[in-house]
Amino acid sequence: MTLPNNEKNHLFLGTFIHSKRLDELQYLHDTAICVNTTGKIVAIEPECDQSKAEASLYPKLGWTTHDVIVTAAKEGQFFFPGFIDTHLHAPQYPNVGIFGKSTLLDWLNTYTFPMEASMASLSKARKVYTRCVRRTLAHGTTTATYFATIHVESTNLLADLCLSMGQRAFIGRVCMDQLGPDYYLDESAEQGLAATRANIAHIRSIDRDFELVSPIITPRFAPACSADMLRRLGDLAAETRLPVQTHVSENVSEIALVRELFPDSPHYTGVYEQAGLLGDRTILAHAIHLSDEEADLVARRKAKVAHCPCSNSAITSGEARVRWLLEKGIDVGLGTDMSGGYSPSVLEAARLACLVSNHLAMPNKQADGCSQSEKEKSKLSVEEVLYLATRGGAEVVGLSSKVGSFEVGMDWDAQLIGLDMVSEEAVDDYTDDGGNVEIFGWETWEDLVAKWLFNGDDRNTKKVWVRGRLVHERRS
Amino acid sequence: MTLPNNEKNHLFLGTFIHSKRLDELQYLHDTAICVNTTGKIVAIEPECDQSKAEASLYPKLGWTTHDVIVTAAKEGQFFFPGFIDTHLHAPQYPNVGIFGKSTLLDWLNTYTFPMEASMASLSKARKVYTRCVRRTLAHGTTTATYFATIHVESTNLLADLCLSMGQRAFIGRVCMDQLGPDYYLDESAEQGLAATRANIAHIRSIDRDFELVSPIITPRFAPACSADMLRRLGDLAAETRLPVQTHVSENVSEIALVRELFPDSPHYTGVYEQAGLLGDRTILAHAIHLSDEEADLVARRKAKVAHCPCSNSAITSGEARVRWLLEKGIDVGLGTDMSGGYSPSVLEAARLACLVSNHLAMPNKQADGCSQSEKEKSKLSVEEVLYLATRGGAEVVGLSSKVGSFEVGMDWDAQLIGLDMVSEEAVDDYTDDGGNVEIFGWETWEDLVAKWLFNGDDRNTKKVWVRGRLVHERRS
Repeated sequence: MTLPNNEKNHLFLGTFIHSKRLDELQYLHDTAICVNTTGKIVAIEPECDQSKAEASLYPKLGWTTHDVIVTAAKEGQFFFPGFIDTHLHAPQYPNVGIFGKSTLLDWLNTYTFPMEASMASLSKARKVYTRCVRRTLAHGTTTATYFATIHVESTNLLADLCLSMGQRAFIGRVCMDQLGPDYYLDESAEQGLAATRANIAHIRSIDRDFELVSPIITPRFAPACSADMLRRLGDLAAETRLPVQTHVSENVSEIALVRELFPDSPHYTGVYEQAGLLGDRTILAHAIHLSDEEADLVARRKAKVAHCPCSNSAITSGEARVRWLLEKGIDVGLGTDMSGGYSPSVLEAARLACLVSNHLAMPNKQADGCSQSEKEKSKLSVEEVLYLATRGGAEVVGLSSKVGSFEVGMDWDAQLIGLDMVSEEAVDDYTDDGGNVEIFGWETWEDLVAKWLFNGDDRNTKKVWVRGRLVHERRS
Repeated sequence: MTLPNNEKNHLFLGTFIHSKRLDELQYLHDTAICVNTTGKIVAIEPECDQSKAEASLYPKLGWTTHDVIVTAAKEGQFFFPGFIDTHLHAPQYPNVGIFGKSTLLDWLNTYTFPMEASMASLSKARKVYTRCVRRTLAHGTTTATYFATIHVESTNLLADLCLSMGQRAFIGRVCMDQLGPDYYLDESAEQGLAATRANIAHIRSIDRDFELVSPIITPRFAPACSADMLRRLGDLAAETRLPVQTHVSENVSEIALVRELFPDSPHYTGVYEQAGLLGDRTILAHAIHLSDEEADLVARRKAKVAHCPCSNSAITSGEARVRWLLEKGIDVGLGTDMSGGYSPSVLEAARLACLVSNHLAMPNKQADGCSQSEKEKSKLSVEEVLYLATRGGAEVVGLSSKVGSFEVGMDWDAQLIGLDMVSEEAVDDYTDDGGNVEIFGWETWEDLVAKWLFNGDDRNTKKVWVRGRLVHERRS
């Protein structure tokens, strides 16, 4: 099936903010953006209001006023690219916040495998996945890169739900033929491959050109896959040119386990390299404890990194050196990594990316072989973490020509952000539903964005569009 | 003036959760708590519903049904002690989230002193303080320990506002006769003392016995005070027996500055000790880089620590070793430290206290002279950070016999927490205003509390009481 067009064209008016480059946000004020029925941006016009758009843009586009839905940002509102969550586990959604003092390997056995195994029930999977997609859309996540479970039926269902709810998504049936408990394992590498092919075929049947929903080849992580399975998945990636996602170098005990399980590999990253799984469409989650040699290999292969600061802080995995990765030329995006991460929000991940980068610079600790000036350099700015949340994520998922910023020819994957102005008249009036960002009126635009980053939540995400389709709207 | 009583008695029914000790929450299900018109808890009855309370408790208390407001927790709701914010700066509230990559000393000059100086305007102070008190009440902060500014009038206004809005508060007129810019300094130690006495007199005039609002002696921090001013404030503390608050050992450059300014003191903590400012009613914010000798002195003097993890992470001050402080027998509470900290929420501070404690245990870094097992020990549990947010905070502000937990004879400073149940019928129905915590129905009570800690926000704080008075209620 091919995707249907939207019924109407769109005109968006007001302030648009997006990343121009890593350390710079561009502010487009009093601007008009036109989006056609295929969801594509067809015009970006500065110093333009509705009447000017009707007079000068509509004729060029062949639009008439009754073809067009007009959305104007009000005072305290702006348009921002939709967030890209480059790493999360949909079946773990009910477990968010529940991790105790565990670290990766005991966390998997205690909380994660039992929950994932329960997605064998389609009715449970429907409930969990529906809430996960709803909730992430509400937080402005227009593209999500999902790990599902080993189950074909429920993984197919996740793809169906993303398509019907309108979230751009990569859907990975999880491949794992070792390490997991008896009740939650692929029977064999062969069976795992067949199941993965069945999932790919299903997604092909609902979205022929993978315009909105795409399969992604998903070996869970090296310790959970036999060398045979990894090799077969590498071959599948070569055959299909589909993207690949997995985990790497998240936790020191995990790394030791990989060394034990794959004694012939030079290092963790080498395991994927040897299997043909390390390429320019590969997303590696975490990449915290990579050696220089590994990071150089990742860079050479143009593989990508999903940085998951909430998760890494919560289950005490480590502090990924994002600056160091970026300086090696590696594309980095953000992942919520639910439920290693506790939050469905990419904004929270961006906030934590700031804080984790600060933790790398803390004066009371010594990072491995890192001088104080290198440590200072590690700090990520507001602009940088918002880049990671949008354009950086688009690079990571291979969609940078389509989403992550506002350019003619790109898709309209966007969110309308609204911040509360403190009213002069009603200073003692507490409005429940505007969220925690309060604007007093003396702030610069840079201040507004910083306030949003640090105190914003889903209450500030008023509307969300994917491919020009309105996929979420707050009632209040 | 003495405080008026409430009009009615209260009966609260349902589940009550509070800290029994540092690492244990107590869950009181199907319980009734009776609160009289002075706001005191007069009965806690297990296995009790409304009719049983009416039959057996009311007669003992001399209550009749029409004297009593009944509040029953619904499914997914529970009562929790109000939060105690042991350190925040009301005038910095408009700056939350705005700090860039600054650290303490440049942050003060760039963002903080200009904003504080502007509170010379009473109308601006009214707006800012009203929003700050409203917002923190909405987040369940029933007791707040405020730094105000050097201005007597607007500091008095903050006290008035806390009293009228019903927030239990300590109000500190900031004393600083050096370091600040010309436009924002006490003229002299003498003038600073006189201004502080004027503020104390004002609070005495509105709340004679400091039942709800109390003055607190507030030298900004050693670098901003001459030895003469510190000495005079120490004498004032001895004379009045009022509590004291200040900052200590937040930032390495600050510590170097103190060494330079006070060459005769053995260390930063020693400056306060020499001035007579280190006692059992002293609250020290941050205490990140204390030496063993300093921490032992703090413990000996029974001074308290306000741990501010949001702030310490945001302005890259360091990672306070809370476990180490606790093991020395020092009482520790949590502070939002707005606007070094970006959030008005003590729940966020508790969440970050967990994460910062994990950062102390990160495998990729070496804390000073700390073995791996000591590092692991540093991790704080859900139970422990909620203790810090309530009972720990009560110890810090010297009110542990009055607030922070539910015991007969204590004041009813409490919040009603509500978590959203995922409805079987309406799994695709997105309810905007219930917040981000989703309960699927299979969770234990411990899971619910963990979910609240990690994804809860002010939307989950349905009602807030101080001294039995309802001071906040969500509309939705």
